[in-house]
Amino acid sequence: MITPYTPVSSNTLEQLVAIVGLDQLSTTAAELDLHSRDAGHHPAHQAEVVVWPSTPEQVAQVLALANAQRIPVTPWGVGTGLEGNAIPLYGGILLSLERMTRIVEVHADDFQVTVEAGLPHKDLNEKLARYGLFFPPDPGANATIGGMLANNAAGIRTVKYGATKDNVLRLQVALADGRLMWLGSRSIKQASGYNLMQLIVGSEGTLGVITQATLKLVPVPRYMSAIIAGFPSVEQAVETVVAVRGSGIDVAALEFIDETNTRALNQAGTDIAPHPTLLMEIHSAHEATLEADMAIVREICEEAGALSFRATADLAERKTLWNARHHAYETLVRNHPNQRIFIMDVAVPISAYPELIAYARQVIDEHGIVGYMKGHAGDGNIHVELPYGDEATFEKVKAVNGAIVLKAIALGGTSTGEHGVGIGKAAYMAAEHGTALDVMRTIKHALDPNGILNPGKVFPSS
Amino acid sequence: MITPYTPVSSNTLEQLVAIVGLDQLSTTAAELDLHSRDAGHHPAHQAEVVVWPSTPEQVAQVLALANAQRIPVTPWGVGTGLEGNAIPLYGGILLSLERMTRIVEVHADDFQVTVEAGLPHKDLNEKLARYGLFFPPDPGANATIGGMLANNAAGIRTVKYGATKDNVLRLQVALADGRLMWLGSRSIKQASGYNLMQLIVGSEGTLGVITQATLKLVPVPRYMSAIIAGFPSVEQAVETVVAVRGSGIDVAALEFIDETNTRALNQAGTDIAPHPTLLMEIHSAHEATLEADMAIVREICEEAGALSFRATADLAERKTLWNARHHAYETLVRNHPNQRIFIMDVAVPISAYPELIAYARQVIDEHGIVGYMKGHAGDGNIHVELPYGDEATFEKVKAVNGAIVLKAIALGGTSTGEHGVGIGKAAYMAAEHGTALDVMRTIKHALDPNGILNPGKVFPSS
Repeated sequence: MITPYTPVSSNTLEQLVAIVGLDQLSTTAAELDLHSRDAGHHPAHQAEVVVWPSTPEQVAQVLALANAQRIPVTPWGVGTGLEGNAIPLYGGILLSLERMTRIVEVHADDFQVTVEAGLPHKDLNEKLARYGLFFPPDPGANATIGGMLANNAAGIRTVKYGATKDNVLRLQVALADGRLMWLGSRSIKQASGYNLMQLIVGSEGTLGVITQATLKLVPVPRYMSAIIAGFPSVEQAVETVVAVRGSGIDVAALEFIDETNTRALNQAGTDIAPHPTLLMEIHSAHEATLEADMAIVREICEEAGALSFRATADLAERKTLWNARHHAYETLVRNHPNQRIFIMDVAVPISAYPELIAYARQVIDEHGIVGYMKGHAGDGNIHVELPYGDEATFEKVKAVNGAIVLKAIALGGTSTGEHGVGIGKAAYMAAEHGTALDVMRTIKHALDPNGILNPGKVFPSS
Repeated sequence: MITPYTPVSSNTLEQLVAIVGLDQLSTTAAELDLHSRDAGHHPAHQAEVVVWPSTPEQVAQVLALANAQRIPVTPWGVGTGLEGNAIPLYGGILLSLERMTRIVEVHADDFQVTVEAGLPHKDLNEKLARYGLFFPPDPGANATIGGMLANNAAGIRTVKYGATKDNVLRLQVALADGRLMWLGSRSIKQASGYNLMQLIVGSEGTLGVITQATLKLVPVPRYMSAIIAGFPSVEQAVETVVAVRGSGIDVAALEFIDETNTRALNQAGTDIAPHPTLLMEIHSAHEATLEADMAIVREICEEAGALSFRATADLAERKTLWNARHHAYETLVRNHPNQRIFIMDVAVPISAYPELIAYARQVIDEHGIVGYMKGHAGDGNIHVELPYGDEATFEKVKAVNGAIVLKAIALGGTSTGEHGVGIGKAAYMAAEHGTALDVMRTIKHALDPNGILNPGKVFPSS
């Protein structure tokens, strides 16, 4: 790969040491390797140096240095991304936020918390438990808050609580030229000037590096219940999704798993009949509401022809269910030894969900490969998991991926609902965004004229 | 005012006629006057021509023409803004969306609707009634969807349903240079590239003109109840707000009115004791939930020392209450004949609400003027209404406004929760945003290099 960038020199390393200190930087093969790949299928690529700043000011100073010398900088949370979002494609500086994990302040009365960007969200929620509050977005993996913001991560509770973008009030961001700024405010309502905060959220580290954030929290619900319902067809399952949402019941999770995936979940401890299945969760402030909600959901499922319906408020049983759901991927990996899994992510308007799933099944079958489907149906988000063990199968997997992505766009949806663009979806940006992609380029150039921030991501290389 | 812009020539008028047609443009004094002021206190200023495009393409062509000739363009919805957001400060073209009021498509199964930007939100909701769906943001006045998006309008239901920014999925926008583009998608979840949509939302027509939008809708709740509770002190009322939100109950409105405002509401038909008062509304999918929610809210109010608590599910009574709340401003106007009302709008973290209100009361008293307070307490948003009838009082009103705005910013809040920056808040942008204001300028320059779009707004003039 030919790069327009400057290699990291020993002189640069000395300057970096002067900023962050000797213990906060490494050029060892082990560290470069550890920070060369994420949890997805994209090939590894190493940076030239890993730097762990410990303050926002250090982040800003590293950026100012890199910008002056035209050295690429790739921000890193904890490497749980799936689309190569944090792989340092052009070498340079891997800017890890791993050591910036402080809770700066809990604003308990405001249901807010200000944290450093490197704090993993599960660690945050453990520490918030004593306040009876939690940060709802949950992508499954223990991603950092900064990574979740940079990629606008979502997950199973988005149908009720929104994606990461919906749960942030204020961001501290270091720009490519080393300016450090706060965006937004601690007020829930904001109508003051351009929403630069939402421009940075989801920009995958290509416009600035998130150093701190003030997040919205919600009270831990007092009552929760899980529901498992099996259906004769995908269409009936999706019809149920539309009806549940139309009922006005504010479900906290509304997950679809296909027949093949029920088996993977059962290996992880559940006992689900092999049908197109909906997993739901309802959160409530009081028991009466929970029971009333459950009764309505049961009625809707039965009207849609559900083959089975099981509801449980039992904590252990709920934990088993959601652990199985969260670890379905690992189960899949174990079921396909010596293979890798390509996880694709698209999202469509809910009415197009059956058509998308039918199309995906058809394309998978036509290519003679194996595919599992599960998704956040309440949001129209689907993940297709495609195992491959050799180059020929990988080519088919990529073809299937491309066909499904274009279908999702054609159905009024998007090439990525929650994994972000990274490397993997860059090729589809023009098809999805048209003129808007040119405007994204204009903004990228205005804020990062030397192109040092996470190069090779979001934009197609042409 | 010295302007760097080109006056509208007879040649330009002919070119405009060629784009929109003879009936879609006016230079009459009556039309120029009608489009020279909004509903707030800012002085009127006339455009040179009012243009009513009837398609997004015409909007784009008008912009391309204006951009080539460096003629300012001020987009106009229906003129219900309060901060001069749509006043054509530099003359030029007043681009009215008033004739673009089509519902393009109702996507009922997806709880979405695509509309033209000039459609007023109440008209939209009337037409949506037969689908059992509605667009929740409600600023009170019958603002257009485009105006609500451009200013990120909010209102009394924001505490449950979010502001306008939270209820949009897709925007069609015409840029200053005449490019027409779609931003976002009809998928609820989106993680694909920069969030240009949220950059445009709230940019008050200074980055582009919104021509169409796909909005999120929600099912009309089957059961609704209103609650009125009076408290001995503002502190106890706000303590209740925090407790209600902490209970996990998803209130649909959580309004604060001060003692002076209870009287104005009573003139409009309510019967509320003169105390710091909370007005609440609860929406629910079933009766049992509503009752359970109401019982908890009653308990919280009583624990906080409420002097009175009244709940009603009666439709007529609820209508009277919310009509009175919505028309409190008109009542105020009637109570102050020959005066104008300066309505200010700031928002703070909820924990800072009592301090802000106490400070506002103190500053109002120190200046020897009259002030009424009401606000969307669930969001930390407060409106102070300051009547004035002469220049000397107006100067005091402006001083009070400035002091309260700076206090709100100092408390971690914002200079505007829902009215936008317009002309009135531009002077506070540097204090609120610091470096971020420079970045806003960079983006403005990148997208509108000739500065034709709504000049004189958002940015301080220095």
